[in-house]
Amino acid sequence: MGLNFEEYKHEYFKSVRKGGIDWALFPMKLYQLGKRLFWDPATIDLSKDVEDWKKLSDLEKLFIINVGSKFSAGEEAVALDLHPLIVTLVKEGRVEEVMYLEQFVYEESKHVEAFRRFFDAVGVKEDLTAFTKELSPNYRKIFYEELPKAMWNLSKDQSPENEVKAVVTYNLIVEGVAAEGGYNIFRYINKKFNILPGLGKMVNWIATDESRHIAFGVYLIARLIKEWGERVYKVAMDHLNYLAPYAIGIFSEPGVPQEGKIPFDLTPEVTVEYAKKLLNVRIDAVNRAKEMKLEMLTPKDLGVIEQ
Amino acid sequence: MGLNFEEYKHEYFKSVRKGGIDWALFPMKLYQLGKRLFWDPATIDLSKDVEDWKKLSDLEKLFIINVGSKFSAGEEAVALDLHPLIVTLVKEGRVEEVMYLEQFVYEESKHVEAFRRFFDAVGVKEDLTAFTKELSPNYRKIFYEELPKAMWNLSKDQSPENEVKAVVTYNLIVEGVAAEGGYNIFRYINKKFNILPGLGKMVNWIATDESRHIAFGVYLIARLIKEWGERVYKVAMDHLNYLAPYAIGIFSEPGVPQEGKIPFDLTPEVTVEYAKKLLNVRIDAVNRAKEMKLEMLTPKDLGVIEQ
Repeated sequence: MGLNFEEYKHEYFKSVRKGGIDWALFPMKLYQLGKRLFWDPATIDLSKDVEDWKKLSDLEKLFIINVGSKFSAGEEAVALDLHPLIVTLVKEGRVEEVMYLEQFVYEESKHVEAFRRFFDAVGVKEDLTAFTKELSPNYRKIFYEELPKAMWNLSKDQSPENEVKAVVTYNLIVEGVAAEGGYNIFRYINKKFNILPGLGKMVNWIATDESRHIAFGVYLIARLIKEWGERVYKVAMDHLNYLAPYAIGIFSEPGVPQEGKIPFDLTPEVTVEYAKKLLNVRIDAVNRAKEMKLEMLTPKDLGVIEQ
Repeated sequence: MGLNFEEYKHEYFKSVRKGGIDWALFPMKLYQLGKRLFWDPATIDLSKDVEDWKKLSDLEKLFIINVGSKFSAGEEAVALDLHPLIVTLVKEGRVEEVMYLEQFVYEESKHVEAFRRFFDAVGVKEDLTAFTKELSPNYRKIFYEELPKAMWNLSKDQSPENEVKAVVTYNLIVEGVAAEGGYNIFRYINKKFNILPGLGKMVNWIATDESRHIAFGVYLIARLIKEWGERVYKVAMDHLNYLAPYAIGIFSEPGVPQEGKIPFDLTPEVTVEYAKKLLNVRIDAVNRAKEMKLEMLTPKDLGVIEQ
């Protein structure tokens, strides 16, 4: 390991050793792709969104605020809570994985920017905390409790079990089910009603970024299973099963005060049933990746959007 | 503070509270600028560099390898060692500063890529560790010992004194003197001999990024002084004075086995005297910033390259 943590000294730097940086590693493929697909939330035109917003009914506005606030808080949560995993990989001397996660976490900060920019543009200024907390016990459980617990536990104990629990919570449940399920709702509204094109564009970019993040998570889980054996796989699946009902539950909660009234002709196929499908997609990906040679794994194998 | 570290729970998320993200904060100005000045090391043409490389003398090659390996290791060091400062600011709930540092640390990973790409392109494959360690005691002291110590001390004790020592070491000494001094050598060679244009381009991009990083460091030191008083300023200046001789010393070491022979007509004005000037520029910037209202501070005030 490059960093001696007893004395806080570096022993070596990988980039100047023989072989240097291993560009063939899966995270480095994601890293190169991420640079090619760089985008800036500040350049996306929200003027039509501002006009569309004025024409929405109160219930429709409330619905967008409800889902959007969950996204905003969720992106902030992942932007803050990834750091203990990065520190874990720094300590293990995994320079390429750290380099990729440095790109990854910057993308999360841009996602926070994107949703906040939308709210600023359409003039939503009030405190939206309740939509993410009091009005949504499942969301609260995942984002206020389980995510930070799984991630910051790594600052005390960096066992493979804790590592895999962190990755399952962050990449499979939060990104792979909760976030991806939410994008689907926005994409549906955006397409079916031809409204909020700026938000739609941002959500597409974010989903593209997230496809790389989730792929990294699947890769890391597969790597941990290969290094530490099937007991790590069992921990991963147990933790996934423990969290799944909450993640799915977010999509069946009303989330807004007017229970019973669902705007935009939304059906369970677009929300809760879609989230259930996503869960199975993630489990399949882990099962597939753990049987593959990691050096053979391509972004395509794990559903990365390469545009 | 947003994260309750006794229980690893989030109390709130700033982006959904009243007021949301404060785009007027100095770090957010750097963040917006950084997105506009995004660049990808993989897109920079190194074909002329490969041709130029073949025509260099052995001593010239050795000199470039010597300076380049110090850069490569140095960029890797800062890419790894920034994380304890980010974690400190996460714990303090400073979301805007964390968002900026997420961009910042990604830029460091691109700098690692840039120097390693150059070595890969010109075919330098051997272990270069000695140039950064055994052959350069001053470099070793700063990058192997003082930088990681100052940064990772924050993982034990996040006092304002430790925070300011971390920022002085990282942003003022490592980035502000050692790195900036090194860029000057590359720029001089690149310009005077009209060689290695790809490397020259990368170094210009890197220096542009670093001008924002150093400005953030100066801002953070000024903020800490305003919050915790002049004792923090004293700690900062004492630590700067302690480290300065090592940082300057890097530029007067031969660094290569053939002592006495300096290629490229390099003079002390380009190396050690330039580094001494840089040190004074950093001290002046801190003295200026700490007397200003932070909300009045602009990137221009702190020498940020805005292109």
